Amino acid sequence: MSDMIQILLPDGSGKEIEKGTTAFGLAKGISNRLAKEAMAAVVNGETADLTTVLQEGDQVSILKFEDAGGTDTFRHTSAHILAQAVKRLYPDAKLAIGPAVLNGYYYDFDIEGTFKQADLDKIEAEMKKIVKEDLKVERFELPRAEALELMEEKGESYKVELINELPEDAIISFYQQGEFVDLCAGSHLPSTKPVKALKLTSATGAYWRGDENNKMLQRIYGTSFPKAKLLDEYLEALEEAKKRDHNKLGRELEMFTTADEIGQGLPILLPKGAKIVQTLQRFVEDEEERRGYLLTKTPLMSKSDLFKRSGHWDLYRDGMFIMGDVNEEDGKSAMALRPMTCPFQFMAYKAKQRSYRDLPLRYGETSTLFRNESSGEMHGLIRVRQFTISEGHLIVRPDQLEEEIRGVVDLVDYMMNTLGIQDDVTYQFSKWDPNNREKYIGEPDQWEATQDTMREILDHMELDYVEVEGEAAFYGPKLDIQFKNVFGKEDTIITVQVDFALAERFDMNYIDKDGQKKAPVIIHRTSIGCYERTLAMLIEKYAGAFPTWLAPVQAKVLTISEKYDDYAAKVVAQMQRAGIRVELDNRGEKIGYKIREARNERLQYILIVGEQEEKDGTVATRTRKNGDEGALPLDDVIGRILRETAERSL
Amino acid sequence: MSDMIQILLPDGSGKEIEKGTTAFGLAKGISNRLAKEAMAAVVNGETADLTTVLQEGDQVSILKFEDAGGTDTFRHTSAHILAQAVKRLYPDAKLAIGPAVLNGYYYDFDIEGTFKQADLDKIEAEMKKIVKEDLKVERFELPRAEALELMEEKGESYKVELINELPEDAIISFYQQGEFVDLCAGSHLPSTKPVKALKLTSATGAYWRGDENNKMLQRIYGTSFPKAKLLDEYLEALEEAKKRDHNKLGRELEMFTTADEIGQGLPILLPKGAKIVQTLQRFVEDEEERRGYLLTKTPLMSKSDLFKRSGHWDLYRDGMFIMGDVNEEDGKSAMALRPMTCPFQFMAYKAKQRSYRDLPLRYGETSTLFRNESSGEMHGLIRVRQFTISEGHLIVRPDQLEEEIRGVVDLVDYMMNTLGIQDDVTYQFSKWDPNNREKYIGEPDQWEATQDTMREILDHMELDYVEVEGEAAFYGPKLDIQFKNVFGKEDTIITVQVDFALAERFDMNYIDKDGQKKAPVIIHRTSIGCYERTLAMLIEKYAGAFPTWLAPVQAKVLTISEKYDDYAAKVVAQMQRAGIRVELDNRGEKIGYKIREARNERLQYILIVGEQEEKDGTVATRTRKNGDEGALPLDDVIGRILRETAERSL
Repeated sequence: MSDMIQILLPDGSGKEIEKGTTAFGLAKGISNRLAKEAMAAVVNGETADLTTVLQEGDQVSILKFEDAGGTDTFRHTSAHILAQAVKRLYPDAKLAIGPAVLNGYYYDFDIEGTFKQADLDKIEAEMKKIVKEDLKVERFELPRAEALELMEEKGESYKVELINELPEDAIISFYQQGEFVDLCAGSHLPSTKPVKALKLTSATGAYWRGDENNKMLQRIYGTSFPKAKLLDEYLEALEEAKKRDHNKLGRELEMFTTADEIGQGLPILLPKGAKIVQTLQRFVEDEEERRGYLLTKTPLMSKSDLFKRSGHWDLYRDGMFIMGDVNEEDGKSAMALRPMTCPFQFMAYKAKQRSYRDLPLRYGETSTLFRNESSGEMHGLIRVRQFTISEGHLIVRPDQLEEEIRGVVDLVDYMMNTLGIQDDVTYQFSKWDPNNREKYIGEPDQWEATQDTMREILDHMELDYVEVEGEAAFYGPKLDIQFKNVFGKEDTIITVQVDFALAERFDMNYIDKDGQKKAPVIIHRTSIGCYERTLAMLIEKYAGAFPTWLAPVQAKVLTISEKYDDYAAKVVAQMQRAGIRVELDNRGEKIGYKIREARNERLQYILIVGEQEEKDGTVATRTRKNGDEGALPLDDVIGRILRETAERSL
Repeated sequence: MSDMIQILLPDGSGKEIEKGTTAFGLAKGISNRLAKEAMAAVVNGETADLTTVLQEGDQVSILKFEDAGGTDTFRHTSAHILAQAVKRLYPDAKLAIGPAVLNGYYYDFDIEGTFKQADLDKIEAEMKKIVKEDLKVERFELPRAEALELMEEKGESYKVELINELPEDAIISFYQQGEFVDLCAGSHLPSTKPVKALKLTSATGAYWRGDENNKMLQRIYGTSFPKAKLLDEYLEALEEAKKRDHNKLGRELEMFTTADEIGQGLPILLPKGAKIVQTLQRFVEDEEERRGYLLTKTPLMSKSDLFKRSGHWDLYRDGMFIMGDVNEEDGKSAMALRPMTCPFQFMAYKAKQRSYRDLPLRYGETSTLFRNESSGEMHGLIRVRQFTISEGHLIVRPDQLEEEIRGVVDLVDYMMNTLGIQDDVTYQFSKWDPNNREKYIGEPDQWEATQDTMREILDHMELDYVEVEGEAAFYGPKLDIQFKNVFGKEDTIITVQVDFALAERFDMNYIDKDGQKKAPVIIHRTSIGCYERTLAMLIEKYAGAFPTWLAPVQAKVLTISEKYDDYAAKVVAQMQRAGIRVELDNRGEKIGYKIREARNERLQYILIVGEQEEKDGTVATRTRKNGDEGALPLDDVIGRILRETAERSL
């Protein structure tokens, strides 16, 4: 009996196993199927290799590929296979890092030249060989001196740098498969064999540690799956997503462009993109006004004094654009572009003494913000250095907090529904990280109390949310609305923050019924997020075929021949008078060609005019929704477009 | 006969006068009245003292106080009288400079402490004494060495600095009145006597040469007139203007505020100001869309590369906010905030190849710009570091230029008429200064040709304009629309520029009918100018009583007592549903007090509800235009407000 130990399964039940059993052995003991699908384990809350020997009292669960930890382990081993293949083919390549990422993995190499498609093909073939070789993946640990010696011996200078930066008490582990050894914390598959279906997807340059002052390395991206069918499905979905990629489709549809002379992360909204953003902004401003918001227009820059008081100068300075001497050595205050609107709207609040009767005050602003992102992070309309957000701050009494948060969440819901993305979002309650106190202002007690209040309100609202630690703003916890884009990447598009800290910092107060000055609570919120990001999201969601109310061109009139130019002009004029955004194509091209072009522009309404239409006062109507609808009275079509616009139909 | 000389009068006629006759003598010879009113003369195009002895062939005209040169001479002598009085009372004061300015003059002194009202009273009394003393004002010239010696002897170190900076061949002149001597180019009155009516208006600190790195001096402002009646009229008008001063009234009406922590020149638009700007912006964007403009939204910053190409980096850098190393010593491109939108919209044009059929392209943008003004120049909403302008560029073929300029001027006229300021503006044709070529890009021939083209078009349009040299943009001549504010200060509020230079610099082209690539012409224009400035102008124009369509609050409902709260809430709700911006005052204050407060807010519609109104479904209506109109059906009042809004009535 002394050979048996007791472990705990995820359902809380205990299980007796032989001493020396590994996680894999446990899986096998449960079912052969589980053993076949097992990728890694979670032992006492930490992801671990299947080869881990279990101990008395361990809490164990087995991870399959579908589990996040399982996918990561699978992809992590795939990255090692990639690195092994590269080292076999290019022995001089130095290894940098190779993590699992969304939808796959990458590995960065220091190597002469760049990887071409032919290189990727060769590497991929070698990777498949390594999988077939069914190499055991084995972990070992070394003391620091020996770890350094091993990596120096192999000429892996980046690994040496990484080891030197590890904390003194860190366990330094390596993984070996065949001749290949890599510094790695794990976890990994027990062998290379399960990585049956793999594909290298692209190669690109990437700075060591993402810092443009460092050397440019060569990064290879790949993906992998336990079954060929999963890989095929993924590649197909990827092709579909690429067609919708706003960074491609948005340019093709002339929504935006970029210019080298201007720089990265600074997109130019062309008339079609600007029209959509204008439509969205007016919609948001008007809806907020209806809900009692007051519009402000505050400066885009300030002396550092303001940011020192808000805490941005200490906690966020690296992300800010600063003008003048950042060290303020000549005694002059530097100026900085704002990364957030908060302290500016606080100054609007402070323009006069407020009383309890004035609250809640709901300030909204179509606000442009600036973040000094490093150039590696720039992407289309999503990662940018300048963006415009539907910003707002509600200054409320403590007794108004819950109702006002409800109002904010209701407004956000309304926006998501109007855009048609309500089913694509989830809620996340983002809390502080008590182990990382230097990232936040305020005291632990205050944080816990604020978080408790916020959780209580969210629960009252019966909101379905997940809690995540370490994602709060530096001044308070957040409710984040998360959106998954066409590539499966999740981003926060909207946040609602509760802040008991900044009002005091800024000497903001109101005179309460009892005549005492008190500090209000502040809700930081956006109703629709950043307009550039919303535009990107909508391009991808609708694959460029915008709903009528948002479409920069709502209808296009095509002439069969120049004989109908006059009638076409009349049609266009009548539509414009009705306030419809309409274009005319009266070029001398064949009608089929003109229709094809208009369809490529993803238009909702294509209206063709020829002899019969002129005689009858109709337009031959092709809609994106119903296809060819035949000749319809122009007035009817106008009425329909106006109705769809007014109702914001999707 | 040899004692007589011939001079030329302004009407072209000649006149014989005795040799040795002064300009004053000439005036006296024409009429005693003219001699009495004469302040200075213009001799061969230069302003000169009346004591100037005329020479054979001189072209001479006599300047009265009403003439600009006459006013300046009068005020210039007034400034000397001020300085003389200060030196008598405070012998240690050092003289800096003392010019004539709009509506008066000032003098800067280096002195311990500041000037209080009691000091100003004493100085003013001393000035009046100096006027009574009827001191002769006499000019003399000195060689540089003697000039320096004289000023050093008097301890006037600022004057020494000024002399040292004069070009080598400069004539160094002084003016003396009684014991007082000042370095001065002139011109001056012959004596202190005509300065009958004078008043010191304020004292303030001012940096030597306006540079905040220099010593702070003490500046005294004053005004003066040849008659007491003119001074009284001026002071009365000034009081009226001060009441309308947007920097005072705009704050009182809660249109905007400022915050020390944010900095100078960065006003915060509060909800009322922001509402007016939003209304204006939508109006402009919609009107421009109706006229075929395409909206863009381009980045607010760029790498220096763009500004190097546009010429801003060479010719405008001092006025720009720059981030990173301005010398770009580490090889990295600095980033800068944009002072103008031009090159950004050019990049939108360049997003694809254009053909002659695509032109004209009219781009409009509600564009925020940044100018690094020095802190001494900041003022309310007028001199700011950040502002938003209705910017736009028309890219046209040469054969479209005239029609497009006409279109632009028509749009400007429409805007001025809609704002009700059409009678407050004048047109100025601003040309380059051929003697200051380094301030401009392009060749003299090109400048002259462009100016000729522009003048021809302006003449075709039968526009009434004045020509001014040296006021062009660095890339082309301008048509400036000039507005005089309540203090009589003239500012350019709108400009239309013709530019044959930048398209080539930016490789902008279109494919013409003949298949050749050609450079378009660019019209730079704004339709309504800067919104902050427009807001300031309208606050002063309407003394805060905005026309209904622009008013941030269109109506206010006041309750006689809390018994009518329900009815008042119904009235407010009905108005809001109709889209009217309405506020409610249901405080427990006396109705007279509530009416007075509402009137101070300069509201167009004050609607009072009590028993009778509730019974009849009416509102007791007081309008700014007609006063008490008695009880009116609510629907009628709503209809009237909506009509005034839709028609943009003034």
